[in-house]
Amino acid sequence: MSTQNQTKIIAESNKQEIYIIREFDAPREAVFNAYADPEILVQWLGPEDRIMKIEKYESRSGGAYRYFICNRQGKTIAAFNGAIHEVTAPERIIQTFEFEGLPERGHVTLDTVIFEELPDNRTKVTAHSVFRSVADRNAMMQSGVEKGLNEGYRKLDALLQLKVIS
Amino acid sequence: MSTQNQTKIIAESNKQEIYIIREFDAPREAVFNAYADPEILVQWLGPEDRIMKIEKYESRSGGAYRYFICNRQGKTIAAFNGAIHEVTAPERIIQTFEFEGLPERGHVTLDTVIFEELPDNRTKVTAHSVFRSVADRNAMMQSGVEKGLNEGYRKLDALLQLKVIS
Repeated sequence: MSTQNQTKIIAESNKQEIYIIREFDAPREAVFNAYADPEILVQWLGPEDRIMKIEKYESRSGGAYRYFICNRQGKTIAAFNGAIHEVTAPERIIQTFEFEGLPERGHVTLDTVIFEELPDNRTKVTAHSVFRSVADRNAMMQSGVEKGLNEGYRKLDALLQLKVIS
Repeated sequence: MSTQNQTKIIAESNKQEIYIIREFDAPREAVFNAYADPEILVQWLGPEDRIMKIEKYESRSGGAYRYFICNRQGKTIAAFNGAIHEVTAPERIIQTFEFEGLPERGHVTLDTVIFEELPDNRTKVTAHSVFRSVADRNAMMQSGVEKGLNEGYRKLDALLQLKVIS
């Protein structure tokens, strides 16, 4: 059974930020845990045909993380890392994020993920990323992340339906 | 002897970022260390009539920090914390920053500090902060941080003239 939840992306022209909004048919605690617990995160983040491998995930205020997106054979396709500013269950995660595959390092974003309760045990997730420049934001938008995002969210929909991760 | 170095602040209207640019009459390694080594940082950061106290300063990629600005009697006036994304000597520090005294938490910035070599063993420091909103940026600009910044920089000028911290 597939959910009808759609991903909404807001990227105003000339701004150095983006909002990615998605609802889930599961209670806030379950959705928050799916983001904050690396043992669950590793099961859904990334495109359909990829797997996530975690090198380090200190899921707490003042922690840090590094992970890889790999193909089905386990070969690393991309690496990401960041520092975790705040983890406040079940409402907010604030962290930095960097894709290590760019020609130069330092194109970091500040990502705030807000988890809001909706009626009927549903949850709204708003991921707000601010970039070091409008150019950085536009480059990310043009890199085709939307497909991978949506595929990851659909994996998360399925996990949440199992109701074993709340 | 006082330096003639001036602080330049660039805050374009309707942007959620600010640049703070300052030059120092000292080589890049010395200036970088004054920012990256908490034992030196504690000697200069903050307004003239204040002292800095460090609770934690893990000055490395993936570290975190928390410190206080206190009056001369040691009473805490303000607390700050953040997560450190990258420390690359002697050229760059990227970290989050939060003033804990605001009415609500989460008004975090992403700060990138770039250290550039200038002729005659001088150094240009560009601190670039991106905010979660234009409103956050404007509130910070109106809070009167400029005086404290300049007083801190003058303390750093004096430390660098001692030439004991390179």
